[in-house]
Amino acid sequence: MGKRHFALGLDFGTNSVRALIADIQTGEEVSSFVHDYTRGEDGIILDARDPNLARQHPLEYTEGMERAVKGALEAAAAVRGFAPGSVIGIGVDTTGSTPIPVDGNGLPLAFHKDFESNPNAMAWLWKDHTAHEEAAAITERAHQNIPDYTTYCGGIYSSEWYFSKIWHLAKVDPAVYSASASFVEHCDLMPALLAGDTRPAAVIRSRCAAGHKAMFNAHWGGLPSQGFLTSLDSRLDGLNAKLYEKSHTADTRVGGLCKEWAARLGLAPGTAIAGGAFDAHMGAVASGIKPGVLVKIMGTSTCDMMVVPPGELKKAIKGICGQVDGSITPGLTGLEAGQSAVGDIFAWYRDETRWALGNLLPLTGHGSQLSQEQLAKIMSESRTTVYRVLSERASSLRPGESGLLSLDWLNGNRTVLVDPNLTGMLLGLTLATEPHEVFRALIEGTAFGARIIMDRFESYRIHIDEIVTCGGLPNQNPFLMQLYADILGRTIKIARSGQTCALGAAMFGAVAAGPGQGGFRKVEEAQAAMSGLSDSSYKPDSGSRDAWAKLYALYKKLHDSFGTQGCNEDLFPVMKELLAIKRSVTH
Amino acid sequence: MGKRHFALGLDFGTNSVRALIADIQTGEEVSSFVHDYTRGEDGIILDARDPNLARQHPLEYTEGMERAVKGALEAAAAVRGFAPGSVIGIGVDTTGSTPIPVDGNGLPLAFHKDFESNPNAMAWLWKDHTAHEEAAAITERAHQNIPDYTTYCGGIYSSEWYFSKIWHLAKVDPAVYSASASFVEHCDLMPALLAGDTRPAAVIRSRCAAGHKAMFNAHWGGLPSQGFLTSLDSRLDGLNAKLYEKSHTADTRVGGLCKEWAARLGLAPGTAIAGGAFDAHMGAVASGIKPGVLVKIMGTSTCDMMVVPPGELKKAIKGICGQVDGSITPGLTGLEAGQSAVGDIFAWYRDETRWALGNLLPLTGHGSQLSQEQLAKIMSESRTTVYRVLSERASSLRPGESGLLSLDWLNGNRTVLVDPNLTGMLLGLTLATEPHEVFRALIEGTAFGARIIMDRFESYRIHIDEIVTCGGLPNQNPFLMQLYADILGRTIKIARSGQTCALGAAMFGAVAAGPGQGGFRKVEEAQAAMSGLSDSSYKPDSGSRDAWAKLYALYKKLHDSFGTQGCNEDLFPVMKELLAIKRSVTH
Repeated sequence: MGKRHFALGLDFGTNSVRALIADIQTGEEVSSFVHDYTRGEDGIILDARDPNLARQHPLEYTEGMERAVKGALEAAAAVRGFAPGSVIGIGVDTTGSTPIPVDGNGLPLAFHKDFESNPNAMAWLWKDHTAHEEAAAITERAHQNIPDYTTYCGGIYSSEWYFSKIWHLAKVDPAVYSASASFVEHCDLMPALLAGDTRPAAVIRSRCAAGHKAMFNAHWGGLPSQGFLTSLDSRLDGLNAKLYEKSHTADTRVGGLCKEWAARLGLAPGTAIAGGAFDAHMGAVASGIKPGVLVKIMGTSTCDMMVVPPGELKKAIKGICGQVDGSITPGLTGLEAGQSAVGDIFAWYRDETRWALGNLLPLTGHGSQLSQEQLAKIMSESRTTVYRVLSERASSLRPGESGLLSLDWLNGNRTVLVDPNLTGMLLGLTLATEPHEVFRALIEGTAFGARIIMDRFESYRIHIDEIVTCGGLPNQNPFLMQLYADILGRTIKIARSGQTCALGAAMFGAVAAGPGQGGFRKVEEAQAAMSGLSDSSYKPDSGSRDAWAKLYALYKKLHDSFGTQGCNEDLFPVMKELLAIKRSVTH
Repeated sequence: MGKRHFALGLDFGTNSVRALIADIQTGEEVSSFVHDYTRGEDGIILDARDPNLARQHPLEYTEGMERAVKGALEAAAAVRGFAPGSVIGIGVDTTGSTPIPVDGNGLPLAFHKDFESNPNAMAWLWKDHTAHEEAAAITERAHQNIPDYTTYCGGIYSSEWYFSKIWHLAKVDPAVYSASASFVEHCDLMPALLAGDTRPAAVIRSRCAAGHKAMFNAHWGGLPSQGFLTSLDSRLDGLNAKLYEKSHTADTRVGGLCKEWAARLGLAPGTAIAGGAFDAHMGAVASGIKPGVLVKIMGTSTCDMMVVPPGELKKAIKGICGQVDGSITPGLTGLEAGQSAVGDIFAWYRDETRWALGNLLPLTGHGSQLSQEQLAKIMSESRTTVYRVLSERASSLRPGESGLLSLDWLNGNRTVLVDPNLTGMLLGLTLATEPHEVFRALIEGTAFGARIIMDRFESYRIHIDEIVTCGGLPNQNPFLMQLYADILGRTIKIARSGQTCALGAAMFGAVAAGPGQGGFRKVEEAQAAMSGLSDSSYKPDSGSRDAWAKLYALYKKLHDSFGTQGCNEDLFPVMKELLAIKRSVTH
């Protein structure tokens, strides 16, 4: 066995940053370290007056990166054949769209004393929804424009995305807006920082962020025109010049590790730095994405990713929120769909069913004599017990036996309706309905939602031969995975790695290093060496196929009636009007 | 003060029988006693193989009546001016339709050794739903018939009603069917028993049961014709001759108390016995029903009752399940509407929220060290705590603040859709939805359902000046009652009596006795003397009127889309198909 080469993947999540060191010949994950962010609530800066606000202090990223890498290096020290100098490349993935206002040197404005505690000068975390009005206005304006800039992002621009947030900033905080020399995605800033040149004009902008979140597309020569931006709001005059004209795939070598960060991290100066991308996209690569394989990253929400050869897709797919050349695998068109809540729905219901333990037990009988510590222990242990009990009981139900049907829109609908103003629904309740039936119906609702996405891909002749899952859910709940296999009618495989996003980042690091440094020429080579599947898989029960087809047809009726304009004039507005009333009451 | 006169009301409920002794000059309830039935589950004979089956052994009625009356007499013994001989009249109300197969002497077949443990020979309790197929067939056949016999019972014949049950009996148990000399409603049997003549031809059949449940109407000369019955099933040949040609209002004096029952009860032989009626109808009388007053009996389900002068109603009201001359107040047309689940829905959700106490606590942390007795105490105390906590938190929400909307059909819809194949729905769920919001939305859903009923009355120019409530709910939860007042936009008053059904029965007893015995000439006189309102009432908050109007309009859209044929071809079948699938899986 020759000299071992390693790559470092840095995975910046919503609440923590993970550093992973992987052997690039085998994909073996020799060490990893997770650093939890320290500011605000689980690392997120909130605003009690506005539940839509979610920011992150950029110091989390620099402090956290240093801590996580050191932790991973310490853990790898004992690994045979490992030395910091054997790390040949570094890749980065982050959440997104998470734009950061920066100064003329490309440093976050929040690093300046004046702005250090101003949330508007921090990173606008992906799940910040303060810009929902701006998103709606961008969508409307784009539809009137030729070209329609939303063509390749599903037809509806999101409040989570780049321009919505920048525009909202321009409205609510002119001081921060005018002090901004540019707005850099988190996934673009980190490689630039590591390579030692963050000047806005020099930053390598990722195809992934640009294409999926900033309406960047070769069809119209890059970003939306200044004329378009000005037509939105005169305050956006001059914005285009602060941004960029080119974007790059993540196999691009951004540069070599600069001396300052080499010293802080304990790695060799000059180590190859790959371009950044979003977590899901790199996770898909580490899950072995290729044409015909649908990768589902299943956690609190899902991302459903596919790649197709360029030119195969004759027209934009309606409702698929991203279709971007090279955003996942360089040379292939990356397709990103997803459900805005999946695991989050189960966690919500878990907490509904546990409500009595926290709210009634301390008031009732012997429960009132339990100590705070005992009550806290009951709450914490029940977090897992509840899933076990509900899943056990729900697993014995047959398709349709609960009589329930749910719409999985408790956090809106990302694909294919692309509508945040939808809400969840539970239908079929009777006086005999029990919690394990509701739990199962909620899972089934998310699986039906997943089937809608598959159907949409296939209706555009993008055939799905295989489903590979990764993320938190696939390894937690076999009952859930079997239900998904049955409802989707496909075998579901599971990626071998439990940290696919970080592994994907490491793979891009190995590609950026290139064969000269012991790395790879291209992403497919890295996949062949480093990615793989777990031994367990879930096969659909063919006996239940017809039952699921009937139930799915009923789901589809609800889905279309409440979610699709023009299908039902009475019902389409109901969820939206309820939300509007709710907002008018609570604001 | 002269000699006091008293009347006895016997109220046969679903799980118990109540005897009430009331002063007929003042309505003062001097004593009461409740006897819980002893057989089956809470007095109901069930069948583990068929959740639709609900029967009651007629021995419950004779044994229970004796026990309850003796209990009430014992409790009244110390009352000044009371003596058993000062009871001048006895009235009876029961659940219904609760038909009982009887022999040639009018005694229940279940009193015979051969049939004593055969559920088909017992009372077919109102909530027995075994005859749903027969009900549907009767409805269909009636619609083809001239006259349409369902005209005055809402257009849809129920599985809970007289002929559905008799027909089902003829199908499933020919031995019992052919041994039956007649089928007597529980409310008709009890007065006949007390008066000592139960021969079928002699039994006074109540207008209430005949008109509301047996399609008896003067327009077509009484019951449906034998031709109609035979057209349903040749097994029903000869049925008509076993039944009756006349029906009577409950102020009718059925007879005097027979010696046997006088001895068993400890009352004077010859005491006037009034005709029977259903519990809700007599409760409405004790609540002061008169033209312009809507009486809502609010408990596990509701009955919404009105009376109108004869001739005022020009045509049958669509969806109002009973319109019968004299069924409530003699001389006025009684209208009966209702919601098939109200308090039952809140109890269902109470138990959903308490699920963790029974199912997780014993498995978790210190909860697993609690004794069976301690756990049982927590469960029992939490029954009330949960309502208090949920109501407290829900009361601070403003209209629309939860963003939720519910359809209150967890036990089907009685009025105005008259459709048991509907189910409950909860719409507007988000990841932030909390149990007190769901609880409130469920209450609001029932109040919207109540408003639909009011609207239906008023759309037929039956004006509602006043709402009076009675039953279990009005005195239990002020938050709920205020919400009802706000949503209905009316002042809601509460009947003074906590046992209006039994009091109403006593009032009919006093009317049957007549002025010669110190009683009344007519029901209105009894009402003037014996009924009254509680001091507390709930006035609508006029500031929230517009908000409720908007939310009600949204409720109406859901109601019509899922509940009304012809309104939405996609959605109308959804609940029905889900139920059909559920039934096909579970049977």
